[in-house]
Amino acid sequence: MTQQPSAQALVPFVSVENMMRLVHQIGLERILIDLTDAIEEDFLRWDCFDKTPRVASHSDIGVIELMPTSDGLRYGFKYVNGHPKNTREGLQTVTAFGMLAEVATGYPLLLSEMTLLTALRTAATSAMATRHLAPGDATVMAMIGNGAQSEFQALALKAVNGIREVRLYDIDPEATRKCAANLAGSGLKVVPCSSPQEAIEGAQVITTCTADKQYATILTDNMVGAGVHINAIGGDCPGKTELHRDILHRAEIFVEYTPQTRIEGEIQQVAPDHPVTELCQVIAGKAQGRRDARQITLFDGVGFAIEDFSALRKIHDYVQDGKFCQNLDMIADPDNPRDLFGMLMRSK
Amino acid sequence: MTQQPSAQALVPFVSVENMMRLVHQIGLERILIDLTDAIEEDFLRWDCFDKTPRVASHSDIGVIELMPTSDGLRYGFKYVNGHPKNTREGLQTVTAFGMLAEVATGYPLLLSEMTLLTALRTAATSAMATRHLAPGDATVMAMIGNGAQSEFQALALKAVNGIREVRLYDIDPEATRKCAANLAGSGLKVVPCSSPQEAIEGAQVITTCTADKQYATILTDNMVGAGVHINAIGGDCPGKTELHRDILHRAEIFVEYTPQTRIEGEIQQVAPDHPVTELCQVIAGKAQGRRDARQITLFDGVGFAIEDFSALRKIHDYVQDGKFCQNLDMIADPDNPRDLFGMLMRSK
Repeated sequence: MTQQPSAQALVPFVSVENMMRLVHQIGLERILIDLTDAIEEDFLRWDCFDKTPRVASHSDIGVIELMPTSDGLRYGFKYVNGHPKNTREGLQTVTAFGMLAEVATGYPLLLSEMTLLTALRTAATSAMATRHLAPGDATVMAMIGNGAQSEFQALALKAVNGIREVRLYDIDPEATRKCAANLAGSGLKVVPCSSPQEAIEGAQVITTCTADKQYATILTDNMVGAGVHINAIGGDCPGKTELHRDILHRAEIFVEYTPQTRIEGEIQQVAPDHPVTELCQVIAGKAQGRRDARQITLFDGVGFAIEDFSALRKIHDYVQDGKFCQNLDMIADPDNPRDLFGMLMRSK
Repeated sequence: MTQQPSAQALVPFVSVENMMRLVHQIGLERILIDLTDAIEEDFLRWDCFDKTPRVASHSDIGVIELMPTSDGLRYGFKYVNGHPKNTREGLQTVTAFGMLAEVATGYPLLLSEMTLLTALRTAATSAMATRHLAPGDATVMAMIGNGAQSEFQALALKAVNGIREVRLYDIDPEATRKCAANLAGSGLKVVPCSSPQEAIEGAQVITTCTADKQYATILTDNMVGAGVHINAIGGDCPGKTELHRDILHRAEIFVEYTPQTRIEGEIQQVAPDHPVTELCQVIAGKAQGRRDARQITLFDGVGFAIEDFSALRKIHDYVQDGKFCQNLDMIADPDNPRDLFGMLMRSK
């Protein structure tokens, strides 16, 4: 006879299907705004967090990473892979799931799919950076790279930053067609372009998000005019960058967590002491963001564990009523905690 | 309308209830033997593995750890906490779950409860060490510390090493009563004892597994006679040990992974260059195990990621027929991998 597990032994799990239902229920733009605010709240209390560079297991064809962090009350981690060749096999380049746990007991509070959630929080992080760095009157963005992340980026900047026009470019016109079709009806003016030059025409914000695992030059120096803000989020692992290094020398560079970005970001291309500013400093008012209208600002985004933590705690809030999760019998819970064996024997 | 996720998007999950059903179906002693062999196979190919010390997040009252490893084909990690005060609140000191994934794609292959599985693999690891280090004619063991791990230790040494009598001692007589009751009918002769001295009388193998998070002295030097083998598995984090340091100077010490054991094991008490032998060397025939009948051998076990990997791959083998797992919709799987957004929109 099996005894019923106690409440703490059951871990609420948000499946892919439930995550999609949750997004439809709350509204995609609303969630993007909420996540932007949640991440900003956590960046404001940056010093509360345990900050560890991610723990990566590299192979020839990809990487599997664990990204843990804690604010002293809750602990979160994300499992995420990066396998650029996966798309050729009909698989996702990046899949992810994550967990939130209680520091006081070590017991899990939430298990969640994070492939969709990572797309949402990555877009929200760009929106947060754009809020603090882009020119105040920005209404036009260029989206270079029209893969799985592109629509989320565009919609986050619409919802949070007031972007009204998105100009699309991808080396694969099929990707651009897909992105344009998905954004039709979003309220954004969508302009498919046939070159990066055309895409950045009139854009105050440029977001690059391409997936090659190599040093690439998506933007060259002469393409970037005064006053723009760049979200460079595709260069996110050693050996993978998107911008010509000359741009880095003209721009003021902002990062999430310097020790990690030095290894994974665009700034791999410059000297290890090249000046950068952490976004948390800007958000806390301890460092300046955009200084003037002609400055080029660059958010060298690689994705950091605290953003996943913020996303997980927000999802945990959303699912409190139990509507969008199922309970997993994941934690062995004997009546007498020292009698794990007895629990096993009595279940016969 | 929601599309059906593909097979790779579904992750087989072994719940606590299914793990218990699996144990009853296969038989506890059979599983302990299988796990001992699986761990030994992996220790034999030690050099194939990525070895990282665990990634720990410490708080005043406990620790949450991630333990990743990979053999190049598969990647595994375990989430595990350690909160000694949890038992006072009716919770487990240690709870755990883990995952096995495919290195080639980064996609998860298995999610499993690991509270029970950790108890099984910890016992199997002691059995493996005992197989290579204990006197050949060992039939009597002392089990010092009669908590959640104790019955598993006794049964593994019965199944793998031919132990016929177990002598129990715990500072809490209630724990000893519980352990003795659980082992009644196991085929072992069970002898509850009222002191550690009484427990080790006539024992060729002594296993210590106590849970205090402090330097403790469960065994003093004068208690340990010539020729015994000790499995010291309770001292497994910084500041937590069980043996008097003089015993360490008389014994030949064997460890799993030296860099981790120096920090977490009994050998925290001795010089950082105190000689130790890695078990994998003994198993591969590259180092000697027990030299003679009068030697004291000590397995300073702290638990290592490869043992969890072995356990996960064995469970993955066991559940191939799908009888002991449920499929979790955990990985977002759009028809077109670059169209995550389209999948979300179409699910409306």
